[in-house]
Amino acid sequence: MADLDLKNNNTISPVVNLQTLPHLTDYLQNLQTFTNPLHNNQFYHPSDHGFYISSSDVILRQILYNLAVPAPPQLDQQLAYHRAGPRQQTYFDPSCVKAAIVTCGGLCPGMNTVIRELVVGLSELYGVTQIFGVPAGYRGFYTDEHVHVQLYPKLVHNWHKKGGTVLATSRGGFNLHKIVDAIQHQGYNQVYIIGGDGTMRGAVDIYQEVVRRKLNISINGIPKTVDNDVGIIDKSFGFQTAVETAQQAINAAHVEAESAVNGIGLVKLMGRNTGHIALHATLSSRDVDCCLIPENSFYLEGEGGMFEFLGERLKKNGHAVVVVAEGAGQELIPRSAAQKEERDESGNLSFLDVGGWLKSELKHWWDRDHPGELLTVKYIDPTYMIRAVPANATDNLYCTLVAHSAIHGVMAGYTGFVSGPVNGNYAYIPLEEVAQAKNPVNTKDHKWAWVRTVTNQPDFVKG
Amino acid sequence: MADLDLKNNNTISPVVNLQTLPHLTDYLQNLQTFTNPLHNNQFYHPSDHGFYISSSDVILRQILYNLAVPAPPQLDQQLAYHRAGPRQQTYFDPSCVKAAIVTCGGLCPGMNTVIRELVVGLSELYGVTQIFGVPAGYRGFYTDEHVHVQLYPKLVHNWHKKGGTVLATSRGGFNLHKIVDAIQHQGYNQVYIIGGDGTMRGAVDIYQEVVRRKLNISINGIPKTVDNDVGIIDKSFGFQTAVETAQQAINAAHVEAESAVNGIGLVKLMGRNTGHIALHATLSSRDVDCCLIPENSFYLEGEGGMFEFLGERLKKNGHAVVVVAEGAGQELIPRSAAQKEERDESGNLSFLDVGGWLKSELKHWWDRDHPGELLTVKYIDPTYMIRAVPANATDNLYCTLVAHSAIHGVMAGYTGFVSGPVNGNYAYIPLEEVAQAKNPVNTKDHKWAWVRTVTNQPDFVKG
Amino acid sequence: MADLDLKNNNTISPVVNLQTLPHLTDYLQNLQTFTNPLHNNQFYHPSDHGFYISSSDVILRQILYNLAVPAPPQLDQQLAYHRAGPRQQTYFDPSCVKAAIVTCGGLCPGMNTVIRELVVGLSELYGVTQIFGVPAGYRGFYTDEHVHVQLYPKLVHNWHKKGGTVLATSRGGFNLHKIVDAIQHQGYNQVYIIGGDGTMRGAVDIYQEVVRRKLNISINGIPKTVDNDVGIIDKSFGFQTAVETAQQAINAAHVEAESAVNGIGLVKLMGRNTGHIALHATLSSRDVDCCLIPENSFYLEGEGGMFEFLGERLKKNGHAVVVVAEGAGQELIPRSAAQKEERDESGNLSFLDVGGWLKSELKHWWDRDHPGELLTVKYIDPTYMIRAVPANATDNLYCTLVAHSAIHGVMAGYTGFVSGPVNGNYAYIPLEEVAQAKNPVNTKDHKWAWVRTVTNQPDFVKG
Amino acid sequence: MADLDLKNNNTISPVVNLQTLPHLTDYLQNLQTFTNPLHNNQFYHPSDHGFYISSSDVILRQILYNLAVPAPPQLDQQLAYHRAGPRQQTYFDPSCVKAAIVTCGGLCPGMNTVIRELVVGLSELYGVTQIFGVPAGYRGFYTDEHVHVQLYPKLVHNWHKKGGTVLATSRGGFNLHKIVDAIQHQGYNQVYIIGGDGTMRGAVDIYQEVVRRKLNISINGIPKTVDNDVGIIDKSFGFQTAVETAQQAINAAHVEAESAVNGIGLVKLMGRNTGHIALHATLSSRDVDCCLIPENSFYLEGEGGMFEFLGERLKKNGHAVVVVAEGAGQELIPRSAAQKEERDESGNLSFLDVGGWLKSELKHWWDRDHPGELLTVKYIDPTYMIRAVPANATDNLYCTLVAHSAIHGVMAGYTGFVSGPVNGNYAYIPLEEVAQAKNPVNTKDHKWAWVRTVTNQPDFVKG
Repeated sequence: MADLDLKNNNTISPVVNLQTLPHLTDYLQNLQTFTNPLHNNQFYHPSDHGFYISSSDVILRQILYNLAVPAPPQLDQQLAYHRAGPRQQTYFDPSCVKAAIVTCGGLCPGMNTVIRELVVGLSELYGVTQIFGVPAGYRGFYTDEHVHVQLYPKLVHNWHKKGGTVLATSRGGFNLHKIVDAIQHQGYNQVYIIGGDGTMRGAVDIYQEVVRRKLNISINGIPKTVDNDVGIIDKSFGFQTAVETAQQAINAAHVEAESAVNGIGLVKLMGRNTGHIALHATLSSRDVDCCLIPENSFYLEGEGGMFEFLGERLKKNGHAVVVVAEGAGQELIPRSAAQKEERDESGNLSFLDVGGWLKSELKHWWDRDHPGELLTVKYIDPTYMIRAVPANATDNLYCTLVAHSAIHGVMAGYTGFVSGPVNGNYAYIPLEEVAQAKNPVNTKDHKWAWVRTVTNQPDFVKG
Repeated sequence: MADLDLKNNNTISPVVNLQTLPHLTDYLQNLQTFTNPLHNNQFYHPSDHGFYISSSDVILRQILYNLAVPAPPQLDQQLAYHRAGPRQQTYFDPSCVKAAIVTCGGLCPGMNTVIRELVVGLSELYGVTQIFGVPAGYRGFYTDEHVHVQLYPKLVHNWHKKGGTVLATSRGGFNLHKIVDAIQHQGYNQVYIIGGDGTMRGAVDIYQEVVRRKLNISINGIPKTVDNDVGIIDKSFGFQTAVETAQQAINAAHVEAESAVNGIGLVKLMGRNTGHIALHATLSSRDVDCCLIPENSFYLEGEGGMFEFLGERLKKNGHAVVVVAEGAGQELIPRSAAQKEERDESGNLSFLDVGGWLKSELKHWWDRDHPGELLTVKYIDPTYMIRAVPANATDNLYCTLVAHSAIHGVMAGYTGFVSGPVNGNYAYIPLEEVAQAKNPVNTKDHKWAWVRTVTNQPDFVKG
Repeated sequence: MADLDLKNNNTISPVVNLQTLPHLTDYLQNLQTFTNPLHNNQFYHPSDHGFYISSSDVILRQILYNLAVPAPPQLDQQLAYHRAGPRQQTYFDPSCVKAAIVTCGGLCPGMNTVIRELVVGLSELYGVTQIFGVPAGYRGFYTDEHVHVQLYPKLVHNWHKKGGTVLATSRGGFNLHKIVDAIQHQGYNQVYIIGGDGTMRGAVDIYQEVVRRKLNISINGIPKTVDNDVGIIDKSFGFQTAVETAQQAINAAHVEAESAVNGIGLVKLMGRNTGHIALHATLSSRDVDCCLIPENSFYLEGEGGMFEFLGERLKKNGHAVVVVAEGAGQELIPRSAAQKEERDESGNLSFLDVGGWLKSELKHWWDRDHPGELLTVKYIDPTYMIRAVPANATDNLYCTLVAHSAIHGVMAGYTGFVSGPVNGNYAYIPLEEVAQAKNPVNTKDHKWAWVRTVTNQPDFVKG
Repeated sequence: MADLDLKNNNTISPVVNLQTLPHLTDYLQNLQTFTNPLHNNQFYHPSDHGFYISSSDVILRQILYNLAVPAPPQLDQQLAYHRAGPRQQTYFDPSCVKAAIVTCGGLCPGMNTVIRELVVGLSELYGVTQIFGVPAGYRGFYTDEHVHVQLYPKLVHNWHKKGGTVLATSRGGFNLHKIVDAIQHQGYNQVYIIGGDGTMRGAVDIYQEVVRRKLNISINGIPKTVDNDVGIIDKSFGFQTAVETAQQAINAAHVEAESAVNGIGLVKLMGRNTGHIALHATLSSRDVDCCLIPENSFYLEGEGGMFEFLGERLKKNGHAVVVVAEGAGQELIPRSAAQKEERDESGNLSFLDVGGWLKSELKHWWDRDHPGELLTVKYIDPTYMIRAVPANATDNLYCTLVAHSAIHGVMAGYTGFVSGPVNGNYAYIPLEEVAQAKNPVNTKDHKWAWVRTVTNQPDFVKG
């Protein structure tokens, strides 16, 4: 190629900064190790080269390089993570394992698949028989009335075909000492915690308290966020099912809008901090005229504003479809003093209903600027109909991989960690890191630009 | 950790072997270059750092390392690919572009989305107006009766919601000189070819002939394989939709089997050379008792054979579900002399119907070994019902990314190439390499082991 | 049988009260008649006995008799209706027909199928070529900005696969004289009006004005009510699709409720005057704990009230699902003075949001009676997602039958009438009668009792 | 109206021929009667007028009259049936009831709903606790290996959401004396038999043998025929679900055909004796070019034949879709001597695969008449994917009504009967009558003519 005189031999020499992964041996001495029971499992071929993963197996985080630029010294760009997978030696005797599984926070497609795969994996891969479901979220650990349910493969066989969580869930209820006391009291030595960012922060606290008490208990976190707002991992389970299911709501909004005079179909989709679902649903549907996400401010009035844009769109097409992520435009909605204080049970700031507000603002604008003309705004909030469905095939497989990776890591003695895909391969990541990582939509990126070419919406940057 | 004394600073020093990518300037002199029209596109921010991709931007192919092992000298493990994306300079004046799009071979979910996105992308990103659909596959280039149809965004707007290919397709019909003559005659200077492995081999020939004739024509290939049997790229479009849709057939087989006395539900799924669909559908469904794929030989009679296994399963559960990839067991089916010669129009070896054969063998076995007892075999071949559906949301986005990447590469003057995801990022890969790369299921890998833990089927290795 | 000494010859002798059906000849003299063009249509066999329906062909309305009771003298129980179907003589020369089709009011599955079938039927059965769609409801007749669109079979071919109405619709806009003037001005002599009860009352006015002006114009009404609240006819189109689609919302509510601590899933379904959708969806789903409909009053507090019932249900099962028709409990919701005056554009009384009110009342009750305990109420309003879907196969056929029956009747010179199923056979019914007929759920009937055996809910009759 | 001088008072005076319904008292003396337990059921209001149905309550079969024609003396046109519903007196003490439910023959959507509703209805309406499922069809009564399973409401709660039959089914296995011996031996006094026409003929034999032995056992038949080929009743359960699901196969065939060069999509649908599914699916889909049913002979070659028609259609549109009922064209397919003798286990004549034969004939025709031209025939047999789905909402309700009607009738002492809808109302019909009644598609009727206007296919009447 004319403009490139790179030679085909370039050394990129990254200094690998292997992320430290917490392990039971960090604070416990003389732990016994065991030969991985997979060694004698008829379905595996552990003698094959590459079957067992060792602590020196890593995944590079950075895989994109510009060969024309010398490797930068910033370490944070050159992280490597431990690879997920079975280890040759384990730190648990399966017959002594007592595992607890808990689901916290709102629903997300795939929760039951994760539970199912934890149960089936622990049981069939490692021969664990003492597996318990903690009902109703964090409070289920210590509230007397909630009986922990024993789980076994036959019981959970069809759970991946059900939406929601058979264990039940709740927001809040986090009480560190009661929880760790209960874990000790019940004799659990493996705890699998499925939940969102608040839940993951709680899991970090539990892990740290377990370390402080020097308990031989491994804590694993499985990020559950239908919004896909967790960083580091490629994506979270249930997200793709949610995008798929959101199409139904957008279709309905489109039909309603098209069938009306100056019809606006308004769909609110999940996404408090990030607009991933709105963005992906818009790209998949291609019937959306305007997509509003938290990462991209917008304004209603004036030149380049949403009213001007929708006015033109209605004039041209007679209808328009607007998709809004629930966290978008929060700064535009007037809040009462009380609303400024409200927080939900997980401690998240209380979100105002951007959909209801937009519907009302649209009507006011129209009545003011187009008196006597019809406007039809149909507002659809499909949240519960999206998040309560079972996982699709793609997410189901994802759930299997996450759950089995988690089990391998826990059996290998890792603790305070998360398993998840990094660049398409499964890695172990410190819980603390995941609990803090965000995953905003990059509005400078092509995907957001594509949304805008699909919608032709303005960039809402005031001139 | 006790067993690892790796330090956190390890140098892996790969010597990057950047894959050479064919470019029009390889054989044409003094080509004019143009500023990328995205520069003036309201939806993009080309001034942002990192917007344009340059020829020094690469994606590493190898991202898994064992830090305990010194970097090996094998070059093939250290390949890097050019990153896909818009270039600052293009080699085509949009007003002079005449693009052709052709679809070849069998149906696959997402074909229409790819066509749609090529049209919309060429038009809205680059301002190209001369875009034509070549009907009915390769023969459509040169057969008089097939009129090339002009395509434009409004026409293709809803095509992503339709299964199949609006352009129509056919197998075979490849005639190198007639095709290149027709391309020249019609004045096409960008040719986008969507098809399977046979089609890609044809595209390589077309590219080479174009080079030989020193024509200023860029040839791009978009691998279409519902089976996911193309190597190098992470996966092919339509595959996940196919896995999703296959669940319906497996469910039906499961219901039929459960409702019968000694019921066997037998489902044949696509996959001539690879069992990816069978494997993923089995993992997603978890209702399958035996999954047969081309990569793993099996046998029927005797100890450890399928009859023994199914006999036990029927005894235990009263029913069983078998999923078989169409390419599995081909070596077991008796062929007549004529059948040994038969090839399909794309030149592929003619496959025998493993489903029909298995159904018949199962009945013979049962009548022989369990005379007087009932057996019910229900055989489902859902192939056309799977491949004729529109792409799901996940595949739709994939199609957009592949098509837009292809356009950026072609506009940048690359030719004889494919765009596709490598480790989750979009890369440009030489057509020749893709046309030869296979993507078999790795039966030593955990996924296949998981299938076997799901099914508990034997490994069919004779003792 | 012991307790019955009825003989097998019983005469029930109903005096048939054949419903008078308006006809153009009622007020126009010397109208020309024509041989039905079906006579020469290759697809029909008009020479077969029974092909043509005559004005003496009737359908009995009453088909249930108690032989032990002498035939009662009440005439209203012995009505007979004219049968729908092609007549040997028609009153329109197809080449002189100019037909208008208009859709009014809210969306309902099947509207596009009805339009499609009117177009295809008029064109292919009778050879009519002048068929126009009046956009945007009644106002579309006379508002300048709305262009009447010519419709023909190829254009409408796929409309039955789309939700909504391609013609667009609106509420209100009824202006009798402007509409009839416009009909005259445009030269329409057949007008097909698709809409709800308000629309049907408007159609009666139009018909009467047409009679008053002695115009040779036939007016046909096609009742569109997703709620199934129109009397006389067996059921209305779109109803069964709505019941089907409502299952998704109930499933989601069930999943949300089951996955929560003291979870209540609350679903509001369409049905202002009648609870048919709520009732049928409850019977189909069988996951509902309480079904509230307009025909059956309920109360919240005290013995036998809903709070007591739900309290017990939560105690027993930990969750509950409530389905409420939008018209239920309207008398319980406090109204502001302003709300007491509000009416929608069709003149219907403005309905308050019973779902939002119930959600709020449930929370107040729980906080008051169970302080400190969790309650989770998830409220789903799937209205637009239900009514915007295309008709299912059953409704699609219904739409065909209604539309073709309408055409046959109009061609035969009937006017001011509706076609619809009576006891499973298609009849012609005077518009005035249909416009006034209600179809409440009979709460004394077995179906409502079955709902209560499914839900085990109280009958809310205060002791 | 000008041409009708009928007065509004016409007496049609039918002499009601009330169909005799077998009852236990026909051959047993001094049976004890009981007050219907519904009397004390909180969900019913038995004191309401009209709640209980008496043996004098009838449904008229004939509801269409031509007032111009004097009532004909033929009795068979004036049948009346006993109305279904609860009777004031019952002939069973619920605490002494031991009920058996059996499913025979092939699968049909809704079987599990019928079983569920029989169990729930017997239990919750009448307080019966001894309810058993006979597994695997008729042979399950007497074969040692099949254990009769006790059924109760909690167990069957979700069965309506599953396809197939949880009880399992089989063809054949009918052995009159073994079955009646087993019924006696097990102490069953109510037997509910769900199955097709062969099964119903078996049920007649069982009923007659029970009468011969003078046993106090009521035999009820519930016709299960996805083909809708049973006469007298309006339609059979599962039929509408099948029509709905068949759309998917037709869509796939349409996509395959459209995407090919001279593409023919060929779909075989259920229907051995009748083409109802093919007819309804064609009307719903409207994408079919030719619909072949058993009631309408067709031929391939020559003028007005199918080849000529398809040739024209391919020339015009480039593709065609053919739907064929499995019983169509049987007389055209060459049979070997062996095939002329083959019968299935239910004794039905073995049907040849009309789809495979047609596919092969189409190819021969094309190769002969259009040598060198492409033809693509894609043959889809979706049978098992259609019949294994759960019932849709419409069919679910139907199943409830049929099952509850059956229970009321059995409790009231009727035997040898079927419950089913006649003119939209539920009636009791003698088993013998139903076992013999056919329900062919009336090809002289408008529905078949509509199919032909949809498809524009010839009537295949040789000139």
